[in-house]
Order: sequence, then C-alpha cells, then structure tokens
Amino acid sequence: MFTLYYAPDTCALAAHIALEEANAVFRLERIDFAKAEQQQAPYLAINPKARVPALATARGVLTETPAILAFIAQSFPGARLAPLDDPFAFAEVQAFNDYLCATLHVAHAHRMRGERWADDPAALAAMQRKVPQSVTACYELIDRHMLKGPWVMGKGYTIGDPYLFTIAQWLEDDGVDAARFPRVIDHRRRMLERPAVRKAIADEFA
Amino acid sequence: MFTLYYAPDTCALAAHIALEEANAVFRLERIDFAKAEQQQAPYLAINPKARVPALATARGVLTETPAILAFIAQSFPGARLAPLDDPFAFAEVQAFNDYLCATLHVAHAHRMRGERWADDPAALAAMQRKVPQSVTACYELIDRHMLKGPWVMGKGYTIGDPYLFTIAQWLEDDGVDAARFPRVIDHRRRMLERPAVRKAIADEFA
Repeated sequence: MFTLYYAPDTCALAAHIALEEANAVFRLERIDFAKAEQQQAPYLAINPKARVPALATARGVLTETPAILAFIAQSFPGARLAPLDDPFAFAEVQAFNDYLCATLHVAHAHRMRGERWADDPAALAAMQRKVPQSVTACYELIDRHMLKGPWVMGKGYTIGDPYLFTIAQWLEDDGVDAARFPRVIDHRRRMLERPAVRKAIADEFA
Repeated sequence: MFTLYYAPDTCALAAHIALEEANAVFRLERIDFAKAEQQQAPYLAINPKARVPALATARGVLTETPAILAFIAQSFPGARLAPLDDPFAFAEVQAFNDYLCATLHVAHAHRMRGERWADDPAALAAMQRKVPQSVTACYELIDRHMLKGPWVMGKGYTIGDPYLFTIAQWLEDDGVDAARFPRVIDHRRRMLERPAVRKAIADEFA
C-alpha cells in the first residue's frame, strides 16, 4: 500500500497515472499549495525537499519523478511500463524522462518559480519573458528527435508517456504555439482516451 | 566498445568515472567547448541537445547523466554500482542522482549559463548573485538528509558517488562555504583516493 503525496496541476500527475496504469493499490494525500503545506513541518518530515510528488512505501519515501516512475515500472513488471530486461532501451526511456525533469520542467518553472534562482523583480520578469522561447526549444527537440510515435518510445506505452502528457498540460500557458507541435498535441489527446488517465485526473480534482 | 563524448570540468566526469569503475571498454572523445564544438553539425548529429555527456553504443547514443549512470550499472552488474535487484533501493540511488541533475546542477548553472533562461544582462547578474544561496541550500539538504556515509547510499559505493564527487568540484566557485559541509568535503577527498577517479581525471586533462 503506497501513499502518493500530490497537488493538482503539478508533475505529480505523472506518477499518479503510472500507479493507475499498474493497477497499484495506493491512496492519495493532497498537499494544499495555497496554504503552503509543502513547506510546513508535517510534510517536511515526509519530504524535506518541500516538493511533490512523494511516494510513501513500506520501505520509506521516494521522491523525484523519474526515479518514482522507474520504481513503479520495476515494482509492477506485469504492467510492462518500461523495457525492464533491456538496459539500453530502459536507459532511452529514462533519458527521455530526465530531459523532461531537468530541462523542460526547469524551463517552465522560470515562469512561476523564478524566485528559486533570483530575487530581483526585474530579473523574475526577464525570466518570464524568455519562457516561450526556452520551452518552445524543448518541444522542437522532442518533436524532431525524441517522440517516436505513436507513444513516446514507439509502439509500446511506457512511463515516458504519462510524464510527457503531464508536462504538456502547461504548453499553452507557457506561450508555446501548439499548432507547431501537432504530434505532441495528438499524443496528449490520445492519452486522454485512456481510462487510467481519466481516473487519475478525476481523482485529483475530486 | 563505447565512446564517451565529454568536455573537461563538466558533469561528464561522473559517467567517465563510472565507466572506469566498471572496467568498461571505451574510448574518450573530447568536445572543445572553447570552439563551441557542441553546437556544430558533427556533434549535433550525435547529440542534438548540444550538451555533454553522450555515450555512443552499438545500439545508439544515450544522453542524460542519471540515465547513463543507471545504464552503466545495469550493463556491468559484476561491478555492483547499484542495487539492481531491489527496486526500492535502486530508486533511492536514482532519486539522489535526479536531485543532483535537476536541482543542484540547475542551481549551479545559473552562475555561468543564465542565458538559457533570460537575456537581460541585469537578470543574469541577479541570477549569479543568488547562486551561493541556492547551491548552499542544496548542500544543506544533501548533508542532513541524503548523504548516508561513508558513501552516498551508505556502506556500498554506487553510481551516486561519482556524480556527487563531480558536482562537488564546483562548490567553492559557487560561493558555498565548504567548512559548513565537512561530510561532503570528506567524501570528495576519499573519492580522490580511488584509482578509477584518479585515472578518469588524468585522462580528461591528458
């Protein structure tokens, strides 16, 4: 029995969808960002990084979306969410997820979370101005070189798919011209047809 | 036979050390950042992200340090560089590496690579001013919650160790007071006693 600590409209949705796809037994624990619960003692005792997601297990708490996604894939091999017996193919999925985590999500975060990296209001505004360009560059790379289609890694649905779907929710708000990336938009649409995705979204906003 | 594309004084050193620890057969290919070779066609054909490291294998090219490190650990199980048969323990190592990649390295990058996220020179200066604070906060978290000792994950040396060692090279230049983090500095010193680490460093500057 796992507990997934999440907030709506965050990257925690990726792990949530993966748990649903794996038919895992878990409960949801919502962290209220409007009340800054992620920065208060009860949650810091669970995840001192003051972020979501965190996945509590009988062995302890896991953080970081790429690590959690790989853990779910390895813990539920029957769900076939990653090529577990092929280190090269597994690394390709992980490299995709690492790019979303360390480059695309980071570029996006300069719109709303710039205070992590600068204090001056003019600097925060300068960061926000560059988000459309930096995030668009990420989607150009994904579209040309990374998204194999129909799923991220090709024919097989993997842990790369819920993560791309989750991050791609923010594309328009980041100032990206969605019409330039029809394959990403088509992937997002097809993801919404999956029962696991529909259930995860419905449960987060319930 | 792998080829590791690297530049000196970059995070590519982590994968390089791991290859040495695994006794892998590989050759080094140096990318000259002073000539901006990482942004020119020959290298972009290998890695369109215009970054190092990239690891060329018979199957194709892998990128992203956490993914490459996990690939090396899985490809050379005899080297015991990660707890491969324990998904939870493996996820703990991966979460450590993801934090270095997506939070600590990103905080550091605001000192020299701020143009990724803003254009205004005053904004770049504002980013640089915050680096000592943001990078110090990362080391506080690592020191208090993540570095188990003597190695990152405890008694066993893993792919977390060369990555921490590599990133910790930049600690003083980032304006962090090293005296506050004796465990990190001690880890760095003990890493330098390892033949694989000495060989990797010597070969990068040969």
